[in-house]
Amino acid sequence: MDLSDFAFSKLNITIVGLGLIGGSFALALKELNPNKLWAIDKNRDILVMAEEKGVIDKGYFDPKTPLEKSDIVVIALYPKSIIKFVKDNLNYFKSGAVITDTAGLKENIVQEIHTFIREDVDFIGGHPMAGREFSGFPYASKKIFIDSNYILTPIEENQKEHIHLLKSMIRKIGFKNVVYLEPKKHDEIIAFISHLPHVIASTLVNSKMLEEGNSCIGRSFKDMTRVAYINSDLWTELFLENRENLICQIDLFQRDIEKIKKALQKKDRDTLKSILDNSSLKKEEFNNAETYR
Amino acid sequence: MDLSDFAFSKLNITIVGLGLIGGSFALALKELNPNKLWAIDKNRDILVMAEEKGVIDKGYFDPKTPLEKSDIVVIALYPKSIIKFVKDNLNYFKSGAVITDTAGLKENIVQEIHTFIREDVDFIGGHPMAGREFSGFPYASKKIFIDSNYILTPIEENQKEHIHLLKSMIRKIGFKNVVYLEPKKHDEIIAFISHLPHVIASTLVNSKMLEEGNSCIGRSFKDMTRVAYINSDLWTELFLENRENLICQIDLFQRDIEKIKKALQKKDRDTLKSILDNSSLKKEEFNNAETYR
Repeated sequence: MDLSDFAFSKLNITIVGLGLIGGSFALALKELNPNKLWAIDKNRDILVMAEEKGVIDKGYFDPKTPLEKSDIVVIALYPKSIIKFVKDNLNYFKSGAVITDTAGLKENIVQEIHTFIREDVDFIGGHPMAGREFSGFPYASKKIFIDSNYILTPIEENQKEHIHLLKSMIRKIGFKNVVYLEPKKHDEIIAFISHLPHVIASTLVNSKMLEEGNSCIGRSFKDMTRVAYINSDLWTELFLENRENLICQIDLFQRDIEKIKKALQKKDRDTLKSILDNSSLKKEEFNNAETYR
Repeated sequence: MDLSDFAFSKLNITIVGLGLIGGSFALALKELNPNKLWAIDKNRDILVMAEEKGVIDKGYFDPKTPLEKSDIVVIALYPKSIIKFVKDNLNYFKSGAVITDTAGLKENIVQEIHTFIREDVDFIGGHPMAGREFSGFPYASKKIFIDSNYILTPIEENQKEHIHLLKSMIRKIGFKNVVYLEPKKHDEIIAFISHLPHVIASTLVNSKMLEEGNSCIGRSFKDMTRVAYINSDLWTELFLENRENLICQIDLFQRDIEKIKKALQKKDRDTLKSILDNSSLKKEEFNNAETYR
């Protein structure tokens, strides 16, 4: 299906939660010139700021009015608040509306919401693999989406044309690659590609060794600990919600790193070299895949 | 002491080994307009390439001629080859010459060389905290030095003015910060800030999980595994040479990451949040220190 099909100029879009991600969506979606771009937030100052900057057409504290007229609703709240928001406002959604979220976890949200969602609206889980160390609307930027990956977790109940509508929107606001995953598989993979790296970065930065070493560090350490500056409320929630998967990934990681330790203890040059050759090869394959995707 | 004192225009400088680091030194030192900039390498093609590009005044396969006239010698070889080079060419060095190296390990090199070094030449260990994923002269660039840290590991036998001469040279070719460490302390710290991150990056990239996840990864995983593309010969040697320190750092890291795992198993929200708050605080302090240094 040709993704240029969709005329966003005819659609009303509402973003729920003008934080870093919601705000970045607003900035990026504005350029698609939707018929109306609205936002809902508990913080009236942020809504005023977004209106004054011309990022949104209008901000609402009460969800009823914008939801009743919105064809697409993007919910950029913390995982638990997303379920509550859909439940609390279920009667307000426009019939035929496509609702998506941006939470870093999907299984629980998608399952829960589909136990009570109305038949005439379509909720499709999503997760933009984009962000930055800082949180909040003032740090929002459409640049964080450019060339990033986006995971959608559609299920049987979702309608094909709605999935394509979201994919079209996601591609148009700068994302390079839209991947479809089952909600359960998403949470397993995310424990490895996102939660584990954040655990590692925090662990390294909290190490006593850094106090001695931080005047000498190089780029490898800097890059590896970039995400140690973290929104602790959000990530504590993500870690706890995904704890089984994350514990499993920490175990696997510890088992793998143990292999290198054992090789060092045995002065096993061949094993060490093959581990490093293998990682170079994989990284190179991966970089090429990135380049040519 | 004013680091602008030194007139490099009067000095002859020789670089031993035109790989990524040696080549980058050549490119950067050329701009200080030394009296002569020479290079020694086993690969005649690289020497010709460097001459033709005007990066060096002349390249030598035989060390004798350039060493006899060089005031500063920068040895950018693998750790073990550095000791051998100084020993094999000991009689050629110009009296009063300042010799330094760029190896990622210092204790063994500095100790060994000072068992046989001539009294009328001064060997001062050094370690530029700069590099990139690719190796070899074709990838050399003076840009890799800009705003990087440089560790010097002087010992009592070294002369103050020679240490300052090297510091001056290092600052003039773009390094931001020159840190002095004892050779032993250098190797301990480097096990944490450099070798451990490379172990982690390789471990992550070698994980089976990446095959499922690599179409969805975000910046945190990308940044964290940048150095997984690695020169396996060099790094196998570095890891083995520094094995006691590296094993110790892997143990400490495993113990620290275990704390997060335990907190997840106990659903201990407060501990998780305080770990993340602490790492955010430390990363912020560190970023500020970086900015204002």
